[in-house]
Amino acid sequence: MTLPKTVFRPAFAVTRASHVVFAVTDLAKSRAFYVETLGFVVSDEDKSTLYLRGLEEGCHHSLVLKSGGAPTCERVGMRVLTEDDLDLAQAHFKSRGLPTRFVDVPFQGRSLHTVDVAGTPLEICATMTTKPRRIMDFELFHGACPQRIDHFQVLTNEVRPALEFYMQMGFRLSEYIVNDGTDDLRAVFLQRKGNPHDIVFVNNAGPRLHHAAFTIPEVYHLMYICDLLGRNGFGASVEWGPGRHFGPGYARFVYLRDPDGHRIELFTNHYQTIDMEDEPIRWQASDLSVGRWGTFPPVSWQQEGSAFAGSDVRPLAIQERPAVAVHAR
Amino acid sequence: MTLPKTVFRPAFAVTRASHVVFAVTDLAKSRAFYVETLGFVVSDEDKSTLYLRGLEEGCHHSLVLKSGGAPTCERVGMRVLTEDDLDLAQAHFKSRGLPTRFVDVPFQGRSLHTVDVAGTPLEICATMTTKPRRIMDFELFHGACPQRIDHFQVLTNEVRPALEFYMQMGFRLSEYIVNDGTDDLRAVFLQRKGNPHDIVFVNNAGPRLHHAAFTIPEVYHLMYICDLLGRNGFGASVEWGPGRHFGPGYARFVYLRDPDGHRIELFTNHYQTIDMEDEPIRWQASDLSVGRWGTFPPVSWQQEGSAFAGSDVRPLAIQERPAVAVHAR
Amino acid sequence: MTLPKTVFRPAFAVTRASHVVFAVTDLAKSRAFYVETLGFVVSDEDKSTLYLRGLEEGCHHSLVLKSGGAPTCERVGMRVLTEDDLDLAQAHFKSRGLPTRFVDVPFQGRSLHTVDVAGTPLEICATMTTKPRRIMDFELFHGACPQRIDHFQVLTNEVRPALEFYMQMGFRLSEYIVNDGTDDLRAVFLQRKGNPHDIVFVNNAGPRLHHAAFTIPEVYHLMYICDLLGRNGFGASVEWGPGRHFGPGYARFVYLRDPDGHRIELFTNHYQTIDMEDEPIRWQASDLSVGRWGTFPPVSWQQEGSAFAGSDVRPLAIQERPAVAVHAR
Amino acid sequence: MTLPKTVFRPAFAVTRASHVVFAVTDLAKSRAFYVETLGFVVSDEDKSTLYLRGLEEGCHHSLVLKSGGAPTCERVGMRVLTEDDLDLAQAHFKSRGLPTRFVDVPFQGRSLHTVDVAGTPLEICATMTTKPRRIMDFELFHGACPQRIDHFQVLTNEVRPALEFYMQMGFRLSEYIVNDGTDDLRAVFLQRKGNPHDIVFVNNAGPRLHHAAFTIPEVYHLMYICDLLGRNGFGASVEWGPGRHFGPGYARFVYLRDPDGHRIELFTNHYQTIDMEDEPIRWQASDLSVGRWGTFPPVSWQQEGSAFAGSDVRPLAIQERPAVAVHAR
Repeated sequence: MTLPKTVFRPAFAVTRASHVVFAVTDLAKSRAFYVETLGFVVSDEDKSTLYLRGLEEGCHHSLVLKSGGAPTCERVGMRVLTEDDLDLAQAHFKSRGLPTRFVDVPFQGRSLHTVDVAGTPLEICATMTTKPRRIMDFELFHGACPQRIDHFQVLTNEVRPALEFYMQMGFRLSEYIVNDGTDDLRAVFLQRKGNPHDIVFVNNAGPRLHHAAFTIPEVYHLMYICDLLGRNGFGASVEWGPGRHFGPGYARFVYLRDPDGHRIELFTNHYQTIDMEDEPIRWQASDLSVGRWGTFPPVSWQQEGSAFAGSDVRPLAIQERPAVAVHAR
Repeated sequence: MTLPKTVFRPAFAVTRASHVVFAVTDLAKSRAFYVETLGFVVSDEDKSTLYLRGLEEGCHHSLVLKSGGAPTCERVGMRVLTEDDLDLAQAHFKSRGLPTRFVDVPFQGRSLHTVDVAGTPLEICATMTTKPRRIMDFELFHGACPQRIDHFQVLTNEVRPALEFYMQMGFRLSEYIVNDGTDDLRAVFLQRKGNPHDIVFVNNAGPRLHHAAFTIPEVYHLMYICDLLGRNGFGASVEWGPGRHFGPGYARFVYLRDPDGHRIELFTNHYQTIDMEDEPIRWQASDLSVGRWGTFPPVSWQQEGSAFAGSDVRPLAIQERPAVAVHAR
Repeated sequence: MTLPKTVFRPAFAVTRASHVVFAVTDLAKSRAFYVETLGFVVSDEDKSTLYLRGLEEGCHHSLVLKSGGAPTCERVGMRVLTEDDLDLAQAHFKSRGLPTRFVDVPFQGRSLHTVDVAGTPLEICATMTTKPRRIMDFELFHGACPQRIDHFQVLTNEVRPALEFYMQMGFRLSEYIVNDGTDDLRAVFLQRKGNPHDIVFVNNAGPRLHHAAFTIPEVYHLMYICDLLGRNGFGASVEWGPGRHFGPGYARFVYLRDPDGHRIELFTNHYQTIDMEDEPIRWQASDLSVGRWGTFPPVSWQQEGSAFAGSDVRPLAIQERPAVAVHAR
Repeated sequence: MTLPKTVFRPAFAVTRASHVVFAVTDLAKSRAFYVETLGFVVSDEDKSTLYLRGLEEGCHHSLVLKSGGAPTCERVGMRVLTEDDLDLAQAHFKSRGLPTRFVDVPFQGRSLHTVDVAGTPLEICATMTTKPRRIMDFELFHGACPQRIDHFQVLTNEVRPALEFYMQMGFRLSEYIVNDGTDDLRAVFLQRKGNPHDIVFVNNAGPRLHHAAFTIPEVYHLMYICDLLGRNGFGASVEWGPGRHFGPGYARFVYLRDPDGHRIELFTNHYQTIDMEDEPIRWQASDLSVGRWGTFPPVSWQQEGSAFAGSDVRPLAIQERPAVAVHAR
């Protein structure tokens, strides 16, 4: 199988997964879930919008909740290093025939609204209003003590074009999954910031957001947050886990569904992957059962995701075998 | 509902759940599971028997594995305080028309073999060979770092007689579950050592051993032991959890099946219950879903258990509603 | 060395360490320390008194703070099993020539005020108002998440009489420390509830209370509570630890001084000691350095303690060698 | 105060702290410390050299121990992205009048031996032999479960030139400490990989290596490793901690001295710092006591370090006030 070549000096520097914007139907309920239970820090809020960040984050927001309309994922946010990179990014997306538009977004200024080849609506920015890191404000440590955003997982009916598109932008492929005995890509794990992923594409009807992932401190918090969710009336939001991924990323995880069904992953561990010679790790789907314990992901986890605002979901192009999500067998 | 009266000064002093004896089919495989993976300490072993204890235990064994024959639970062990208590215990069981016999058991000397009203084969002793507590021998901390035995759960087709029998012996009822809107007992949690249970009886075809439970140090070990079991080829032994009980005991647990299907619970927390005024906590079956998160116990957990050596399993006497195990709804 | 004989069937049944009463100078400051920072649950409070308990406790209080006067320890509380035991206790103390008086104490009713041979003012009761256990009320989990009271340590200028006195009441000696090469007792660890200690006596100018100890869930909380104390202006209250005892009890601990200098130990682990054949563990002072790591206890920990209300502190009778606290070398 | 300007597109790409080479006097003893106790993975070993890595590392070594001679630090290793960067690095160091030499180093091939302006002997390479990441090989998890190398701290008698030198190479200044009321730099924290530091320079007699730091999973391991060190005869190696830094990095740490006195930091947490607008955090020395708890670093921690092979230690140029290490007050 020929994988795209890694571009070590890309034309512009995407630096990391930045933020996600969810449309929600009941902001008060979302606040009870994300702030009062999970423990996100409120950076700003008004009647229609809640700007949240993790305890260690010095940027204004990594999670934006907007009330009104259908509960879609509005945008997936990426960071570039400088304002110049933002212009270079626009040129790149334009050259690929993708729509681009600069928008003035509160607390982040000039931001590029565009769409990737998979149909993911992106919001790319070079800077944000800064806020104090709360990493030592222990009186704010609460619930899962979310630390920072880590990555997104997007469902797409064609993984290969997404892989090529992102690798051309300098993303590195850390891991990927193929159907057994074939080179059919089921999932690709792409990163810019030196740990296993900033964005993941998985084969399924798409484009849809499967989840946004945030880091939390310890295994203790993986279990404690479930207990607290139960107490606060969100017991059914625990969709899968706490458990362990026996494949890409190896994370200890729990997957939650917020009051609108948006999926959040909380996890505790990843590994560093920076070096030239770190080759993409290849998994066959059946490899994912080696060492496995625990329940399989429920059907909801395998099949459901948040629609992107303004995107039509395309069914799987060719579906020779059941469309299965990453960690299922 | 009238519960039996607590006997605060019983005729003889049972002190605690002591040990369990399992017949196993492949001692080497059991050793790989209990010693090399879970981290039990070997007190003694020969070709046919493995004597194990937890890291903090100063007694010779809390788990005895004997090779040969069908994989039954041979005996559930209880401790009394003194040799005099052992004689008084014999008198008590005899007076109830139950068979009693003194046997010389290796590493524990004179032991009373008898049967309770539910049909549970008991081995009661007053003393055991002592061994060094390994609580500070950190180089032996391994796997789940099991600390000590805590309790047994027995399935019985008649809970009420078991409750009365054990309370007459001075066991206190810490918690119990009834079918909704009735006084039909589904489960009773009985204790002598000042935490929620030494022996539990649950309504199901019996007598069978549902599980023996051991304490482990931290939530970290609940997750780590599952990972290690997976690596060592025992991934399928993780039957339910890691999770939380939303009813009697409130424990953070994981349930494992050993290579012969014997069920072990590992858990991290209980509460102290010593005082006169600690009334039994009453639960209706439906209360167990308050605050709940996570998967339901699998059918295997609800219906399977280890047969006791030499006992016939009686079906449920009256089965107005489905026989359900404790933590299911 | 001849140790006193264990009394397995004492005349009356002390069950456990129950509560401690501290006089404090500024109730608001004590509340900031114990409730807002450490995370104790408030059972009741008025202008002059704060009744606190741990998250798992079903009894009304294990820590009572009374404003006014010098910051002494007013009383150390013990539980007996029944009201009859309370009368038997009175008879026993009287027969030893010790003052006894029944007092009606809020939330615990008839309580025996007396003094032990070391001069420790005791408050013994058979019952208390009950309160809901908060073990599953996860939204109340805060700070160190204190679970329950465990034991007291008392400084006395004569350890042997205290040992004999408590063993006559049925306390068991779990561990003791002697000066190297001698039988001079430096510390005795006495228990009733089946773990290493309910009350400890250590050789030093006394009677004074060295500390009251409470259990907390995990190592994580040992470190987190220090961080939170620092944030809340109580950083200097961390007197020793987090560390590990390399002798009696083996606990992972942290010692704190409250705003009045009363000392609290928070710890995570002990072992079960119930059986007949559990002989007292003998330590020579020098044994305590085997396996040792970390800082030595500061001089304050070695020499300071809370005076008991109305007691004169007697200096050490014979002081052949420096008076050293338990865990120092 | 004018800080050097950040170079966002440096001439060549240093990617991360890579490895450290220690000369040791007794390789067997070092193995007992690093492998059998701390839990490092052995990548290769022969009679005179031990190549170690952390559990998550896919590179051949992050810690190299060579027997023979004085127990110095031979080299501090840095990674560049490509072989081209290695040539560009040589050109850069040459242009600064610093000695450069290409050496063929086992398991890493062509490596640049050079010296920075502070006198730190560097070994820069673009690649290494790869080894399997052991992140899922749970049977190897042992001791502190070291995950990966994170950073170095170097003592230097002139911080400013080191700061300027590294920032010219594209290192970003995450945090720095000045003497109160002045702009005198006491410490600078420099990073390339997106967390707070890859290399730190602290004002003291130098050049000497203060410590190399490795990440470990959880607070549990911070305490457990101390216990295990004690058991294995290395109790005195615990120099400071477990504790918390109340300044740059905010890490939960423990500092150890290996059998030759080389200092290792194990820590559990850092924060991500990637964005353009992340300005260097300025600390006055006295700020470091805000929120503080626990013991001060011992004098050894403040004053001692490993000499670099072949370097003369220069005393502090101007010493207006006591030379104090970073986290002391």
